[in-house]
Amino acid sequence: MANKPSIPKGTRDFSPTEMLRRKYIFSTIEKVFQKYGFLPLETPAMENLETLTGKYGEEGDRLIFKILNSGDAWGGVSEEVKKGLATGEVAPGKFASAVSEKALRYDLTVPFARYVVQHQNEIAFPFKRYQIQPVWRADRPQKGRYREFYQCDADVIGSTSLLNEVELVQLFDDVFSALGLHVVVKINDRKVLSGIAEVSGQPEKVVDIVTAIDKLDKIGREKVEEEMRAKGVSDEAIKGIAPLFDLKGSWSEQRPLLEKWLSSSPMAQQGLKDLSFTFEAVGALKSAKLEYDPTLARGLDYYTGAIFEVKAAEGTMPGSICGGGRYDDLTGIFGLKNMSGVGISFGADRIYDVLLETNKFPTELGGSTKLLFANFGEAEAMHCLKLLRTVREAGIAAELYPDQVKMAKQFKYADDKGIAYVAIIGENELIQGIVTVKDMKTGEQKAVKQDELISAIA
Amino acid sequence: MANKPSIPKGTRDFSPTEMLRRKYIFSTIEKVFQKYGFLPLETPAMENLETLTGKYGEEGDRLIFKILNSGDAWGGVSEEVKKGLATGEVAPGKFASAVSEKALRYDLTVPFARYVVQHQNEIAFPFKRYQIQPVWRADRPQKGRYREFYQCDADVIGSTSLLNEVELVQLFDDVFSALGLHVVVKINDRKVLSGIAEVSGQPEKVVDIVTAIDKLDKIGREKVEEEMRAKGVSDEAIKGIAPLFDLKGSWSEQRPLLEKWLSSSPMAQQGLKDLSFTFEAVGALKSAKLEYDPTLARGLDYYTGAIFEVKAAEGTMPGSICGGGRYDDLTGIFGLKNMSGVGISFGADRIYDVLLETNKFPTELGGSTKLLFANFGEAEAMHCLKLLRTVREAGIAAELYPDQVKMAKQFKYADDKGIAYVAIIGENELIQGIVTVKDMKTGEQKAVKQDELISAIA
Repeated sequence: MANKPSIPKGTRDFSPTEMLRRKYIFSTIEKVFQKYGFLPLETPAMENLETLTGKYGEEGDRLIFKILNSGDAWGGVSEEVKKGLATGEVAPGKFASAVSEKALRYDLTVPFARYVVQHQNEIAFPFKRYQIQPVWRADRPQKGRYREFYQCDADVIGSTSLLNEVELVQLFDDVFSALGLHVVVKINDRKVLSGIAEVSGQPEKVVDIVTAIDKLDKIGREKVEEEMRAKGVSDEAIKGIAPLFDLKGSWSEQRPLLEKWLSSSPMAQQGLKDLSFTFEAVGALKSAKLEYDPTLARGLDYYTGAIFEVKAAEGTMPGSICGGGRYDDLTGIFGLKNMSGVGISFGADRIYDVLLETNKFPTELGGSTKLLFANFGEAEAMHCLKLLRTVREAGIAAELYPDQVKMAKQFKYADDKGIAYVAIIGENELIQGIVTVKDMKTGEQKAVKQDELISAIA
Repeated sequence: MANKPSIPKGTRDFSPTEMLRRKYIFSTIEKVFQKYGFLPLETPAMENLETLTGKYGEEGDRLIFKILNSGDAWGGVSEEVKKGLATGEVAPGKFASAVSEKALRYDLTVPFARYVVQHQNEIAFPFKRYQIQPVWRADRPQKGRYREFYQCDADVIGSTSLLNEVELVQLFDDVFSALGLHVVVKINDRKVLSGIAEVSGQPEKVVDIVTAIDKLDKIGREKVEEEMRAKGVSDEAIKGIAPLFDLKGSWSEQRPLLEKWLSSSPMAQQGLKDLSFTFEAVGALKSAKLEYDPTLARGLDYYTGAIFEVKAAEGTMPGSICGGGRYDDLTGIFGLKNMSGVGISFGADRIYDVLLETNKFPTELGGSTKLLFANFGEAEAMHCLKLLRTVREAGIAAELYPDQVKMAKQFKYADDKGIAYVAIIGENELIQGIVTVKDMKTGEQKAVKQDELISAIA
C-alpha cells in the first residue's frame, strides 16, 4: 500500500489527548448514573436486521449500515435475484436482504427495548439501566455529524411514578455541576401540547401543530403559522393556539395562564399538574436552572409525558446537549405492552465541544502521566526502575524513558506528552543518592533526597 | 414482530451483573496501564476494506465482516459484475468488493499500525498507547468463541530498549496482583528459537520447526517430531533439536545449558543475553512468577524478540489469559519502516472466567447500589428525596423506589439488585425523625436518627 492510510469518511480516530477528555466526560456522567442507582448494560454492535428495520421510519431505514453475510458472499442470493440483478428487475431492498441479515445498531433505544423484552423474566423492574456505546448511521458526513458516534443513555422502565422525572432533573444538575458547566434544563409535557391542539378545535392535527411549534426558535412565529396553514390547520385553530406565543416568565407565572386557557382539556390539566409536581419536588439545584418551555416538543411521536432538553448556559453552542422524556410504549414494537419508561440521553460530542470552548476541562486530566525518569544509561536506568516502582506504588502515573538519547529529546517527549515533572538521576545524583526534579511548566530544577521524590511532586 | 426477539449468533448482551464484573476487570487493567505511562487511543469500528485485507492471511481475510455500501445497494456494481453474477462467472471476492468498501476491525493491531503511520508527525515517540475496544470476526460461533469480543492491548512503539520488556512483565504482575490472581508469566525469545533451527542445520526450516515445537504442550514430543518430519525437517536436524525437550528448571539452571548448546549461533547468544537482562532487571514480583519456556512460540511470523504468555496459576483454565511480544515491523505494511515495538494483550473473557471460577470477584463491585429508600407514599417519599440527596452527596449510590407498592415487592427489588440496605421511613418514622435500616444480608433491622443514616450503612 503506497498511499497514506486513511479512515472512512465520517469516522474518527481519538488521540490520547482527546481520549483523556472524553473519558473525563463519560466517567463523570457514569459516576452520577451509578450514584442514582442506574446499572450498566451493553448490547452487541450487530443486531438482526429485522430487529432494526421499520423502527426509524423510511429515512432511518436507509441510514442503517448493513453487514454483508460472511462466507460465500452470495450464498443466500436466489437465482431469481441474481437474474433480476442483471436485468435491473430486482429492487435494492430485496437484493440487500438477500446478502445481509445483520446490521449495526442505529441507536441504543431499540436494542434496549429488544433486551428488555428478550430478558423480561430475569429483570428486576423498575429497570434502571445506563448504556454508553457507539452507534452507526450512514448519514452524509458533514461538520459535526459523524457516521460513528457514542450515545450515552439512562432509562427507568416499568414505573409510571413522577419521582423518576424529578430524579432525572436532579441527575442533570449533578452531572453538569460535576463538569462545572451552567445549564438550562427545559421541560414540557406532551399532554399539555395535546391539550393545546384540543382547545384549538383540531385535536387530530396535533402532530402537525406541534411539529410546527417545535420550530419556533429557528423560524419564528410567522413561519410557524404558515407551516400549520400549509398542513391544513384552520385559521380558527391557529388563532386558538395564539396565546402560546405570548407565554413567558417562570413556571409559577405561566401556570395560572395555562390552567385558565386549557381549562376545557382534562389531559392538559393532568400535564400541568405533573409539571407542578416536578417543579416542586426537584427543590434547589446547584448548576442547572429548570425552565418551562411551552414550545418544547422533541420527537413528539415518541414521548407521551415529560419532555426534557438541556442547553449550555455558557459558550456559543446553540443546540441542545441532552434530551429525553417519558414514553408509554417502547417495548410494544417487540410485543411487550404497557411498559412505561422515562429516559435521557447525553450528547457527548456536543458536551466535549462546549467544555473545550469554555475552557472547562481540568488542567490535569485523570490518566495522564505525571513523572518521567530521564535515561542516562544502564546503571542509572536500573536504579530508576526501583524508584519507579515506589512512585507507582504510591499511585502516581510515571515512566522511565526507555532509550539513552540526548536530554533535549527526552525533555521534548515529556513536553509533548504533557508530563509535569522530569526526574534526573545522572552519575552525580546516583553517587549522592539524590534526584534533580525539573518542573516542566516553570522550568525550575531542585535537588531532593530520593526518598523525598514523591512529596516533591505531590 | 411476533417472535421473541434475539441477537445474532456469536454475539452477547452483557447484563448489569456481568457489566459490573467486566468493568472491574477493565478498570483495574486500565489504571495499571495509566500508572505505567500508557495513554488511551480509540479507532473507528469501521476501517477501509483495503486497510484490513491481506493483513491476516487468506483464512483471516475470509473472517472479516464487510459492510454493505449504503444507499442504492448496487450503485457500485458494474454491468459486467451484474451479468457475471447471473451467469456465475463472477467470483465472490469481486462481487464483495463491488458492494463493500468498509469492514469491521478484525483486531486492534492493524488499526493501531494504520494510526501510527497516518499520524506519525503528531506522535511523541516512543508511543505508549493502550486500546480497549471490541473486534469482530466471522468465525463459526462455538463455546467460548464469539463473533464480537473486546481486545485490551498495550504497546510501546519506537523503542528497541529491553527496559520496555522489563516493565511489561512488571505490569502483568501489577494487574494480576490487583485482581488477586496468581499467574505464571512465561517468556521466550524468538532469537533463541531461530538459533535452535540454525544449530540443527536447517535454519531455513525455522517456521516449520517452531510451529511444531509450539504444540508440545498439546500433542507431546513424538507427534511434534512426526510433524517436523512431515514438513521436510531431516532426521539429523530433529536429532539436533532433541536437547530442547530435556530442558527444565529455572532460568539460571537452563541458561548455561542453552549457552553451551547454542554456542555457534550469535543470534541465539543475543537472545539469551536479552532474556538474562529481563530476568535480572525485573526484580521481585508480587503475584506473578516469571518462567522461561523454551517451547513458547506464539505467532512466530510476527514476533522478532521477546515472546510473552500468561497463564492462571489457579483454577482450571488451561489456555493463556494474556500474550504478547516484540515485533520489528508492525508499520511496514503501511510504508513506515524500522519501527520496533513491543506489546501485550489481555484476554478479558478468559480473565472473567478464571475470576468467576476461583471466586475472586470482590463481593461489593464498584458501581452497585448500596441503599434503597422504600416508598410509603407521597409525603414520605418527598421526605426521602431530601435524605437521598444527602446520601448521594456523600458519594453513596442510592435510590428511592419510585412507586408505592407492597413492601415485599420493594424488598425483592433490593434483593434482586444486590442492594445492601433498605431505609424505611413510614408514617411513624416520619413523625419521630428516625429511619429504620434493614440489612438485607442478615435481615436485621435497627432504628437510627436520620442524621446517623450514613454512618449506619458505612
